[in-house]
Amino acid sequence: MNERFFSFTVESESSECWGRVGTIRTRRGEIRTPVFMPVGTCGSVKTLSPEEVRTAGATIILGNTYHLWLRPGTEILEHFGGLHAFMKWDRPMLTDSGGFQVFSLKKLNKITDEGVQFASHLDGAKLWLTPEESMRIQRSIGAEIMMVFDECCPWPADEKLAREAMERSARWAKRCREDHPSGRNGQALFGIVQGSTYLHLRKESIARTAEIGFDGLAVGGLSVGEPKALMIDTLDGMMPGMPKDLPRYLMGVGSPEDLFYGVERGIDMFDCVMPTRIARHGAVFTPTGRIDLTGLAWQRSDEPIDPTCDCQACRTFSRGYLRHLFKAKEILALRMASLHNITFMITLMGRIRAALADGTFQRLKSEFLASYMAREEKR
Amino acid sequence: MNERFFSFTVESESSECWGRVGTIRTRRGEIRTPVFMPVGTCGSVKTLSPEEVRTAGATIILGNTYHLWLRPGTEILEHFGGLHAFMKWDRPMLTDSGGFQVFSLKKLNKITDEGVQFASHLDGAKLWLTPEESMRIQRSIGAEIMMVFDECCPWPADEKLAREAMERSARWAKRCREDHPSGRNGQALFGIVQGSTYLHLRKESIARTAEIGFDGLAVGGLSVGEPKALMIDTLDGMMPGMPKDLPRYLMGVGSPEDLFYGVERGIDMFDCVMPTRIARHGAVFTPTGRIDLTGLAWQRSDEPIDPTCDCQACRTFSRGYLRHLFKAKEILALRMASLHNITFMITLMGRIRAALADGTFQRLKSEFLASYMAREEKR
Repeated sequence: MNERFFSFTVESESSECWGRVGTIRTRRGEIRTPVFMPVGTCGSVKTLSPEEVRTAGATIILGNTYHLWLRPGTEILEHFGGLHAFMKWDRPMLTDSGGFQVFSLKKLNKITDEGVQFASHLDGAKLWLTPEESMRIQRSIGAEIMMVFDECCPWPADEKLAREAMERSARWAKRCREDHPSGRNGQALFGIVQGSTYLHLRKESIARTAEIGFDGLAVGGLSVGEPKALMIDTLDGMMPGMPKDLPRYLMGVGSPEDLFYGVERGIDMFDCVMPTRIARHGAVFTPTGRIDLTGLAWQRSDEPIDPTCDCQACRTFSRGYLRHLFKAKEILALRMASLHNITFMITLMGRIRAALADGTFQRLKSEFLASYMAREEKR
Repeated sequence: MNERFFSFTVESESSECWGRVGTIRTRRGEIRTPVFMPVGTCGSVKTLSPEEVRTAGATIILGNTYHLWLRPGTEILEHFGGLHAFMKWDRPMLTDSGGFQVFSLKKLNKITDEGVQFASHLDGAKLWLTPEESMRIQRSIGAEIMMVFDECCPWPADEKLAREAMERSARWAKRCREDHPSGRNGQALFGIVQGSTYLHLRKESIARTAEIGFDGLAVGGLSVGEPKALMIDTLDGMMPGMPKDLPRYLMGVGSPEDLFYGVERGIDMFDCVMPTRIARHGAVFTPTGRIDLTGLAWQRSDEPIDPTCDCQACRTFSRGYLRHLFKAKEILALRMASLHNITFMITLMGRIRAALADGTFQRLKSEFLASYMAREEKR
């Protein structure tokens, strides 16, 4: 195995909270943490070119195993030498296991200890996904970081269900690690902690997952419908038990404010489709909160979305013009809003890293949230 | 009036055909002719940023008066200082008169000598468009080149109808010129020749329009459903009578092959939505004909769309990846295909200009069409 396929170094720990600044090293380059990872579901960060995603400052992006498995399929991905070569993204990449999408499907037929049977959302074809099959697909995709196949239970779930999903996830995690030993194919593998919002289940899951031995540890099964306060509370309870030497990844989170809430509790990695999804409906981040670009208020606005932002949208266009593009259903509107929101998240994370390093995290957090959330709360 | 608002110089005439190379000079820069003008219907060349359109080599783009009048409206355009400032396009621009869209509308209520009454396609509001109103709207938009308000009759039309539309267009052309004397607001005004496919009507229209005195002369009412051979035949009959000192603009044309057919007959300016429209459905130009990127044939193709093309799509992506993006309905597919088709048209026109200047136009035409049309004919 390649000794240098993956490493994580903590460079400075905040004196104010659990937050830390570190570096993940992979064969395709370094990732400074904490990091926000844009999502490229089907082999494209929606509306954007790889060059634009790089310019926005992304050092790692996500690919979705479920979607890529169904289309274009592993045979095509292998023909092109993996997803990096296929989509022309030369920086690091992370793939989920496909589990989250499969468990969210309406056409989920059967869950057994062996795996999951379901119908494709594209053509209804009957498919099986197992821990071993997820590993195989993720090796075809070729991301620097793979995720174990887990069972993510919905919220709310009674304790019995939450325990069953957590225990099955632990058994599956072991099979994933057996199928994909450390550094196989140059790819790292992260474990996932489950247990819903039951702290004793979370603690048990941390112990069982950490024992197997992974290159990083993710927190799954949060931000799946529970109140945000409960998500934060659950993280608070978990964090003292999370191994310090592994990168910690909070899956599917989050919003600008979530970056602060997560980093403060020791999270190193975040991903979320929300910034690009809301962008396509006209919602963009500003230092004083989210605004709806389609609003009549912007009809005559000469201002950029965010005068402090360096993205192409903010350097070039007025809110008034972008509003017009949204009203006229022009694709350039979706592009510019997506580019801005991604840039906003990555720029904000850069400021958070700097603040962690120089002991000003709490000040940055207070200042940002006071300005950003004032408008959010009114919505 | 500004003396330097508009000029046209013929720099070299082909020894092989009616084609010529020239330069249009405007307050916002020069346009080498013959030229292909991408269309920015609603204040955006669909899917592309102004920067991308510049990089594709466009020296002038079109705006659609009808669409911009309805949305965002002249009041908003004036607030922003015109369409150039609104959409951040600093090179020359041309606007049509709105007539073509109005006459194509299903909700056209009434045509009188005064103007045209119709219902907005957006909200059904009853609207009037007259020659004077078209001039007013086009001044609000602020393009370097404005077009007279004309009546474009459909094809086929009987001679009586074709004559009526031609004569009304001539009367309206006079009113446009009276309302917009040479160089008012720094904007040039082009006349439009009508007359359907009746050569005697075309000749009468040329004489009546040229007599009024315009900065350029357009050929309207072609490529509206007639066979391509009849379009070419009509152009052949008209060209000896078209003033040589004015730029000649063939409205709404064309395809790659049309550039050759038109240039050969002395056309200096072309515009068409076709290259971007078909791109959004996966059809792209190559030196060996149009191909459908969504086809199974490209699933494993490592080739770019066109290895001789310098656009971002061809420099970066394989046909296989672009096919995947089209199948997955990713917006990046629409962008890359549009960018390529625009670049292809503009690059081809550059080669045509060079060939006109050095006497190799016929050779370029034969070589290009033999390669390009071989596949086209089979479709």
